[in-house]
This record gives sequence, structure tokens and C-alpha cells, in this order.
Amino acid sequence: MSTRDIILTGDRPTGPLHIGHYVGSLANRVVLQNTCTQFVMIADVQALTDNYEHPEKVHDNVFEVACDYLAVGIDPTKTTIFIQSMIPALAELTMYYMNLVTVARVQRNPTVKTEIKQKAFGEGIPVGFMVYPISQAADITAFKANLVPVGEDQLPMIEQTNEIVRTFNRLYQTDTLVEAKALVPKCARLSGIDGQAKMSKSLGNAIYLKDSVDELAKKIQKMYTDPGHLKVQDPGKIEGNTVFEYLDVFGVDVQKVTELKEQYQRGGLGDMVVKKYLLEQLEILIAPMRARRQEYAKDRAQVMKMLHEGTTLANQVAQQTLYDVKKAMHLLY
Amino acid sequence: MSTRDIILTGDRPTGPLHIGHYVGSLANRVVLQNTCTQFVMIADVQALTDNYEHPEKVHDNVFEVACDYLAVGIDPTKTTIFIQSMIPALAELTMYYMNLVTVARVQRNPTVKTEIKQKAFGEGIPVGFMVYPISQAADITAFKANLVPVGEDQLPMIEQTNEIVRTFNRLYQTDTLVEAKALVPKCARLSGIDGQAKMSKSLGNAIYLKDSVDELAKKIQKMYTDPGHLKVQDPGKIEGNTVFEYLDVFGVDVQKVTELKEQYQRGGLGDMVVKKYLLEQLEILIAPMRARRQEYAKDRAQVMKMLHEGTTLANQVAQQTLYDVKKAMHLLY
Repeated sequence: MSTRDIILTGDRPTGPLHIGHYVGSLANRVVLQNTCTQFVMIADVQALTDNYEHPEKVHDNVFEVACDYLAVGIDPTKTTIFIQSMIPALAELTMYYMNLVTVARVQRNPTVKTEIKQKAFGEGIPVGFMVYPISQAADITAFKANLVPVGEDQLPMIEQTNEIVRTFNRLYQTDTLVEAKALVPKCARLSGIDGQAKMSKSLGNAIYLKDSVDELAKKIQKMYTDPGHLKVQDPGKIEGNTVFEYLDVFGVDVQKVTELKEQYQRGGLGDMVVKKYLLEQLEILIAPMRARRQEYAKDRAQVMKMLHEGTTLANQVAQQTLYDVKKAMHLLY
Repeated sequence: MSTRDIILTGDRPTGPLHIGHYVGSLANRVVLQNTCTQFVMIADVQALTDNYEHPEKVHDNVFEVACDYLAVGIDPTKTTIFIQSMIPALAELTMYYMNLVTVARVQRNPTVKTEIKQKAFGEGIPVGFMVYPISQAADITAFKANLVPVGEDQLPMIEQTNEIVRTFNRLYQTDTLVEAKALVPKCARLSGIDGQAKMSKSLGNAIYLKDSVDELAKKIQKMYTDPGHLKVQDPGKIEGNTVFEYLDVFGVDVQKVTELKEQYQRGGLGDMVVKKYLLEQLEILIAPMRARRQEYAKDRAQVMKMLHEGTTLANQVAQQTLYDVKKAMHLLY
């Protein structure tokens, strides 16, 4: 028996991944894969709960996200990358767990409540969307994950999962399901280039890992700085200045960033100069990723083969859990 | 291409089947299997939605129900009998369909509303129970069933299924899912032996197909007749008299039943005599079933083999539908 931690994490394939994803989760995965048993799920089924009208978008982004993973250094020999819809056990576990949660309980889930407000479903809330915390519990428990990297806003999801785990184990007199701990990343959420609190595809304020140098330069050019800093010689603010927020995160030379901040606050440093420096710093990170990504994107067959191999392995693990679950429920025939 | 009708039907394995099941559905299945492609599902997953605290009961009754099927003459060479929990595609289809139905819509389902009132869930309504009409849509559509035998009270389930079919086909520009028609049996519901409107295990008023002659005799002895018919020479009522209701259904000799009714209404015919006659008539039906059932029940391995074979075939059909569904949704990788 290994005592390594088991991690389940992943992304909804609704668009290519951006540097906010990198800072918030991808970079951690590259580190964690060396010490943990890591499963990374491309959550196409979950993505459909609020994209059911555009499944082709979800389909296409499975490949994009896989390329992003490989580009940032998630290594398929260390991390099991798989496609959610190809793991039937996840749907089956969801069916059994749905009996252990009341309608009132899912409707109380704070994350779901917030998301429902944000999404403004036209014709009413789809059952699939309301049920997705239960589906997430299936994802987590299927791999017996004890660590789940999530943002603060997703903590209620882990609570819901652990409630299901406890109810299941108590009701069916077993210890087959494992409670999970949230692994909240130290790095706060990265703002969008418009200075909005959240970088996201839907807000159109994201820098993608696949952006070309030109796209990157254009986006940095548009970045929100200090709106009061009109002339080079004026003193500028660094609080709320997205360019400096990014430099704090991506600047390789901390000393240099500190000097730039001081000069900017004193006056005499133009936005153009700082932005040019940010572009250089971001390019140190992104250029090699972009190059790797282009190589992978050229060989679709190879990327899909990697996904199929990961999915085969993930299926073995999830099928074993489903077997244990059915056994505890006396559902083997 | 066959133009045979395709039927999906089945039972929740929560107890052995009774003569109410026989009259309302089993007898029809024995006939329909000769002209239709018939799938009979032992709905253990659905049974769990309101029996999740007693999965062992559900497990044990899968075998009981299978024996009942074989005993009444459902022929596994003509009918595909299968276990719901062993068909992963049903859970997977449910996941996709859940996105096409709003929470408000399932909460409006009249059948579910009525059943929720009857069942009085202690800690609130389980999500699985609220969702089961969607799961039923998965069952029906997985087999492309165009005919579904249901009681009047289950008509909203077929409506819900057809709504999902239409939404799916429209949204994903396909004709892969098939609308179903309800096949409402001519025979009304059989009353319980206590004269209650519904024969059911939970009301303790059922005559089981597996009852011994002694059990049958005892139950008929207790049957509700005309409470005002105290002496043999008194005139008796046949309206609401369960013994005569059963004789109308199970009496082989219609002429003789008519004579008995007339004599009972005139006076001079005791309940004991009519009940003895009913026992004889029921035994004509049940004795051979009981004998066959005992043979099957002795050979558990053989019955389970039949179920596994049916399940294998059902899986092939359901997997094909799942493939078609995923193809329409661009979810093949």
C-alpha cells in the first residue's frame, strides 16, 4: 500500500487555459505530480451542465485543454489525464449518491447558488446543474482522492462530498469511501487584464497560454494600470495596478520589480516601459510553453492517444471503486 | 430493419410479484413477447431511490422477481430480461438528459408529487427520487422503445420522456431518440384482499404468485366480501365484493360465475362456498406457476445465468444508443 496522497483535480473544457489557471492550479500540478498520485480530469460532462446547448464547443476544447496541460509540463507519465465522459463509473456513482442527498440540501449549496445567479439560466435551472456537486462527489471519491485543490469559493463542494462519504460509509457499514481535504492554493486569484477581480474567458479579459507574442503584446498594451497616471513624470499608483500585480506574480527578478515600483510611485516611469518589461517577463514563462504547445497541437493523434491511455487507467481505478461501492450496497449479482 | 414494436417495461424489485402484477402487466408481457421486441428491466437502481436504506432487500428481490417472470411464462428466448444496475449506459444517459430538464419541471411532475406525499420521506426528498422520471426516460430511450405499458397514474412519466426526446433531437439536430406511446392495459387495477383499491406489498393485502395453497386459502378466507351478508340465506351484494371482483378476473367458466352471482344476490349462497370456488379457480392459474417457480428457485445459478445473458444483450443495445447520443452531441473522442 502506498501512502502517497491522491489528488483529483481538473478543468471544464470550455476554452483554452489562461495564465490565471496557470498561477492558480496548473503550476501546482506540475509540482504535485512528483510527490502525489495525481488524476487530472477534463470535465466535459460537468461543462455540459451549463453548456448543453453547445456540446461541440466542449468537445473541441477537450483537445485544447489537453495541449495546455502538456505545454505547462503536466507529464502523462506522472499524472493520469482523462476525459470524464469516458468513465461510466462516474455516472453510476452519481446515481447512487443522489439518493443520499436531499433536494433541499443541494439547493442550499452556496457555490451553486452563487453560480446560478451569475449564469441567469433562461428557462430555469437545469437539473444537471443543480446536481453537479453530487457528480463532483462521484469524481472525487471514484479515485479515492484525499486532496482536492480548490479555490475558497469551492469549499462547499468538498463539504458536500464529505457529507456523502460519511452518509455512505455509515449507511452501508463500510469504509470504502474516503473523505477529502481541500487544498487551497496560496496564490490568490489573478485579476483580468481589465483589472476585474477574476480572469475569465467569458469576461474577455484573459491572457491564454497559447497566445502568440503579438496577442500577448496587444493585451498587455490594453492592460489596466493607474488611470490617474497620465504623464510619464507624474507619480503613479501600484495598488490596483494590474501590470504591477502581474509583475509581482511573474517577475523573475524581484529586486528589479521593487525598483520599478519605487520609480513608478516617484514619477518618471511610463506605463509603456513597465508593460514592455512585463511582456519580457511573461515571455520567459510563456515562450517555451507556446513552443511545446505548437508541437503537441500539430500531432493530434498523439495527444488523443495520451488521453485514451490516461482514460483507460482512470477507468480501472474508478471501476474498482464502483465495485467496492456496489459490494457495500449488496448490488453484485 | 424490423418494424416490430419495441417495448420497455419492468418492475422495482422490492418484493415478490402478486396477482395484481399478473393481471395488470405480466399476463400482457407473455402475450406481447410473441409479436414485439420486449425488454423487461428489473429496476434495482430505481428501487433504491426510495429503498436506499435497504439495498439488501432490493438485491434479494432481483432473484425473486426473475423467478416470478419465468414462472408466469416470460420466456428469456423471446424477452430480454436484465438488471438495471448492470447497464452503465442508463446512468450515463441520465446525466446528459438531466441538463435538458429544469428543476421546476421535475418538481411539477404529478406522479412524483403524489408519490412524495405517500412516502413521507423523513429527512426530505432525496435528489435520486426527484430525478427518477429522468432516469426512466433513459431506460425507455436506451432501448428505443416506442411502447411502454404503464398505468394511468404513470402517464406523466411518458410525457416527461417524450419532452426529453423532442428537446434532445431538436437541440442536437438528430432523430436518434424515439418517442414512446403509453400502452395502458385494459384491465383495471386489482383490489387488495381487504377490498382496498390497490393490491400492494406495503399494504399487506396481496396474493403472491409464489404463495402456497395454504397461504392462498388463508388469504381468500380473510377476503373482504359483503359485510352485511351474515347468514347464508340472506341476499348478498356483489358490488365491492372482492371475491366476485376476483372471480370476474380469474373465473375460467363465465357462465358459472354469472350463476353464482345471481344466487348470491338472491340469497342462499354462503361466502365459504364462493371462496372455495375462487380458490379452485385461482389454483388453475397459480398451481402451474408455483410448480415452475419452485423448479427455477431451486436452480439459482441457472436463473442468474439467464439474467446475465439478458443483461449482456441489453448492454449491447443500450451502448449503441449511448454511442448515437454521444455522436449527436459531438462527444466522441
